[in-house]
Amino acid sequence: MNFEIFDTDYITIIFVKDKLNYTGREIEPLWAFKVFNVQKDNIVVFRGKMEVPIDNMKDLKDIKREKDIDIPIKSDDAINFVIEHFDNIDLKTIYLRQRLLVCITKEIIEDNCNLKLRRDGDDLYYNNKKLSVCIACKGIVSSKIHLGINVKSKGAKHIEIIGLEYLGIKDIDKIMKDIAIKYAEEINKIEKDIRKTLPLY
Amino acid sequence: MNFEIFDTDYITIIFVKDKLNYTGREIEPLWAFKVFNVQKDNIVVFRGKMEVPIDNMKDLKDIKREKDIDIPIKSDDAINFVIEHFDNIDLKTIYLRQRLLVCITKEIIEDNCNLKLRRDGDDLYYNNKKLSVCIACKGIVSSKIHLGINVKSKGAKHIEIIGLEYLGIKDIDKIMKDIAIKYAEEINKIEKDIRKTLPLY
Amino acid sequence: MNFEIFDTDYITIIFVKDKLNYTGREIEPLWAFKVFNVQKDNIVVFRGKMEVPIDNMKDLKDIKREKDIDIPIKSDDAINFVIEHFDNIDLKTIYLRQRLLVCITKEIIEDNCNLKLRRDGDDLYYNNKKLSVCIACKGIVSSKIHLGINVKSKGAKHIEIIGLEYLGIKDIDKIMKDIAIKYAEEINKIEKDIRKTLPLY
Amino acid sequence: MNFEIFDTDYITIIFVKDKLNYTGREIEPLWAFKVFNVQKDNIVVFRGKMEVPIDNMKDLKDIKREKDIDIPIKSDDAINFVIEHFDNIDLKTIYLRQRLLVCITKEIIEDNCNLKLRRDGDDLYYNNKKLSVCIACKGIVSSKIHLGINVKSKGAKHIEIIGLEYLGIKDIDKIMKDIAIKYAEEINKIEKDIRKTLPLY
Amino acid sequence: MNFEIFDTDYITIIFVKDKLNYTGREIEPLWAFKVFNVQKDNIVVFRGKMEVPIDNMKDLKDIKREKDIDIPIKSDDAINFVIEHFDNIDLKTIYLRQRLLVCITKEIIEDNCNLKLRRDGDDLYYNNKKLSVCIACKGIVSSKIHLGINVKSKGAKHIEIIGLEYLGIKDIDKIMKDIAIKYAEEINKIEKDIRKTLPLY
Amino acid sequence: MNFEIFDTDYITIIFVKDKLNYTGREIEPLWAFKVFNVQKDNIVVFRGKMEVPIDNMKDLKDIKREKDIDIPIKSDDAINFVIEHFDNIDLKTIYLRQRLLVCITKEIIEDNCNLKLRRDGDDLYYNNKKLSVCIACKGIVSSKIHLGINVKSKGAKHIEIIGLEYLGIKDIDKIMKDIAIKYAEEINKIEKDIRKTLPLY
Repeated sequence: MNFEIFDTDYITIIFVKDKLNYTGREIEPLWAFKVFNVQKDNIVVFRGKMEVPIDNMKDLKDIKREKDIDIPIKSDDAINFVIEHFDNIDLKTIYLRQRLLVCITKEIIEDNCNLKLRRDGDDLYYNNKKLSVCIACKGIVSSKIHLGINVKSKGAKHIEIIGLEYLGIKDIDKIMKDIAIKYAEEINKIEKDIRKTLPLY
Repeated sequence: MNFEIFDTDYITIIFVKDKLNYTGREIEPLWAFKVFNVQKDNIVVFRGKMEVPIDNMKDLKDIKREKDIDIPIKSDDAINFVIEHFDNIDLKTIYLRQRLLVCITKEIIEDNCNLKLRRDGDDLYYNNKKLSVCIACKGIVSSKIHLGINVKSKGAKHIEIIGLEYLGIKDIDKIMKDIAIKYAEEINKIEKDIRKTLPLY
Repeated sequence: MNFEIFDTDYITIIFVKDKLNYTGREIEPLWAFKVFNVQKDNIVVFRGKMEVPIDNMKDLKDIKREKDIDIPIKSDDAINFVIEHFDNIDLKTIYLRQRLLVCITKEIIEDNCNLKLRRDGDDLYYNNKKLSVCIACKGIVSSKIHLGINVKSKGAKHIEIIGLEYLGIKDIDKIMKDIAIKYAEEINKIEKDIRKTLPLY
Repeated sequence: MNFEIFDTDYITIIFVKDKLNYTGREIEPLWAFKVFNVQKDNIVVFRGKMEVPIDNMKDLKDIKREKDIDIPIKSDDAINFVIEHFDNIDLKTIYLRQRLLVCITKEIIEDNCNLKLRRDGDDLYYNNKKLSVCIACKGIVSSKIHLGINVKSKGAKHIEIIGLEYLGIKDIDKIMKDIAIKYAEEINKIEKDIRKTLPLY
Repeated sequence: MNFEIFDTDYITIIFVKDKLNYTGREIEPLWAFKVFNVQKDNIVVFRGKMEVPIDNMKDLKDIKREKDIDIPIKSDDAINFVIEHFDNIDLKTIYLRQRLLVCITKEIIEDNCNLKLRRDGDDLYYNNKKLSVCIACKGIVSSKIHLGINVKSKGAKHIEIIGLEYLGIKDIDKIMKDIAIKYAEEINKIEKDIRKTLPLY
Repeated sequence: MNFEIFDTDYITIIFVKDKLNYTGREIEPLWAFKVFNVQKDNIVVFRGKMEVPIDNMKDLKDIKREKDIDIPIKSDDAINFVIEHFDNIDLKTIYLRQRLLVCITKEIIEDNCNLKLRRDGDDLYYNNKKLSVCIACKGIVSSKIHLGINVKSKGAKHIEIIGLEYLGIKDIDKIMKDIAIKYAEEINKIEKDIRKTLPLY
């Protein structure tokens, strides 16, 4: 596989240049080490189809609702962010990082298309059409986040989706890099912030 | 003091109706219990002067930089959010909540004035003028966040600030409530999210 | 299934009205969300047979001792309490909650029958006959407790058991509700207590 | 000072034979190491006056309510249990241990006087008269519990109290030892329980 | 199986007298409780072949590198230390304990043979030949360490190994006991150290 | 002050070139940020007198034993290592890091002088004379370690000490750098190790 690695203070960014589909198995612990040999907190960014069969899903609410659909999460063309942190955090904290990732994504997309998105928790919408899917979860040794953003508006069957192309965004590569870099910057800045703050008495 | 209490699932919102200045002492553990008798995670919202003497500051970077200024944080009129969580989280997690609060604040202000703000970590800017101050910190029994947003563009001496009024926002009360309610909604939603997510194997 | 839901501050109580057997699979993470759709810490109360095959047992001491018995935990008629907490606690803490549950149960049964029970760790006895079984355990996203109390004195084969009916308790429904409500009250009160306590210096 | 030390698996019991008053300073971290030279989790048991001035109190609810009383916690003769754990637990867990201590205390007193007490959270009552005071709190390196039980029914001014003597208990030394030993047994048994329990998947 | 048990303050030592091979399954949670019935943190010491098939390995780096070898970890005769701690520590902490174990091992071997070893992280070498293998890992209820030290210099195929006999060490039993006892002493001393240390303000 | 900064993956090394005395105040949280402006986990290495008055000591055992001595820790010339970690670890973990630091120090000194030292917990001896002092402690936002190693054999009054010069070590600067760099390497390697290790099931 073709990929580039950018190392930052506390997290490594891996940009995959080849097409790579998201199947839900990429959420497994140590996937990035297996595939890209990275031994650091990491964010892997790639573009391809998104097809998550129900057995690979982690959101039990979705699983219950969509239990009669074989592949509930589907998109013909999407950009994907798979993040792994090893700093012993709990599920609540990884969900906070997930929200921060979604806020960053909203900021960057809006800056690139001059349209206003709506964020509802970890979901992004334009005109009530769904632009993204997102999950956070926790294993024994690490916590992971997946964010998928549709590029084209096609793929999903039981829900109306919209893609970045519809929003007028042409340079998909740039969006991918901007989001990953901005997330890395935020993580690094928080690490610096906790090293300048006096305790409360 | 005149105040209203709104209870939500995991966090109580206290809107203070009287003027109340922010002096930095409100960041102390259990301040909300002492003053408002609330025994729950909480967000206290109030409006007044912001005058934090250097001894009450928690950001050691600012303290070092502004060590010759008596009252480095100053604003003639500001809205203040003082948040306290008791769920045994570490400083990193409370900083993530702080970032989420700042992202929410940006979303709500932009929705109310049709201007674009710039967020840099926990700071908000309009035209490179500083709209807000923010800190997160941790004690033995709880973690706290303070966010102050200028209403008027006056007060600070060594930095150029800007206020909500300059951005064309008239209903300050509404902004105060919107931010507090949205933060409570996010916190409650994350609590629900961690109760629907399958573990990683 | 017929059930009633009572929401309290930090924990939801689900009273199941239909008969429901305890098989050991109810201890799995997110069982209450799957069956009752509850996205909060919860206590599910139900009545039915208790039949836990050795493969579903979590107490390795019992598993070793009773490895030649197919269904070591057996009761013809029992009331069951299945509790799930998501607050990132460790196994030691969930065992403390288990002990508190057993203490509460002892208090309530004694108040309803004017007899004295004996508690030995997480076991309740009357006249050296076993009234209850109990386990606490921990997964990746939540911790769980199961407490089963015999209603009839029959079912178990390799141990002498006793049931609530023998103790003269007639209103089994009331006991079920009393224990669940009291547990919820204790949990809620502890949450309030940690929000009124000054730190140690 | 005259005292006896009994070492158990995970906690050391120190029975003080001389009179020793409880002033609230005994709740400070490492007090037992300073006075009794014990370098283990510990429970110190002693008898004497209880006089806690408002500055030594940790319950901010009581402090607010009794702010005009110099010495709100007062008893002419009381038995005191001061417990310290170093196992990095949070305030919630130490409150659970506190509840367990109070449940044990209730069981032992009832067994010794054939009367029924009422427990309300961490308070014990007989005929609506207060038998005990209790607090749990947390520092940076350890967590502590104090439980004081009146022996005589005198001392407190703004609340009606009752003592063990009124309940007909004569052997105060035995009660002191029984409670401390039983607490140690529970702590040790929980440590064993967490080492026999299979994880949840 | 023939074995001796030595109980120390916080950890039990089990010396297995019979030959016992290390296959990688001994790293599973609660193995020592299953086989030796010990309900305490523990260190099991035994001697035998070491043959770990790739499916039982936990070091994903080794697994990737040696994926074409059936049994990558192999030694004809080795002494093995399998340690289990239940004190809710994270993977980082168990790796620190692993390093401490390896440092102790180096000290003891050097004291017994008057040669200098080289330590590289968790590996010991003599003249660039590998003397040991080591891993630390974490489950839901406990953390575990395995350290294997070659007695003979034979067994491994794709790497040059060296054994204690080559270093001139004759009393293998003594080395086994010395290492286990020293590790137990260190663990116990650290437990004492955390109970004598004032907090930082 | 003259100093050099070497940045490594997870920890920054600060070599102070000027003389700097160790007084015990350097153990305070955020000292390295205040003096050297470093916002990362760090190890500060410096040489000077060591004079710790009893009020700055953290080891309560030493404080009790040496309560009549004004300045119990004294050395005319010593090299000092002050380490700060912010990764939310508990006191037990920082003590494990302390032990690792002392093991590394022993390895490096032995390699440089061809003599054998004796390590007893966190103390180093040569011929029963004390070469070093060491403490680990924990605050609200960070954990810290101090290790002081005598260069000359003079200074302490109530204990016989020995210095590196007596051991024949001439290049003190090299020893300082070697120890700091080796500690940083170990910390970085452990961070890598936790990112290659499969979880236990």
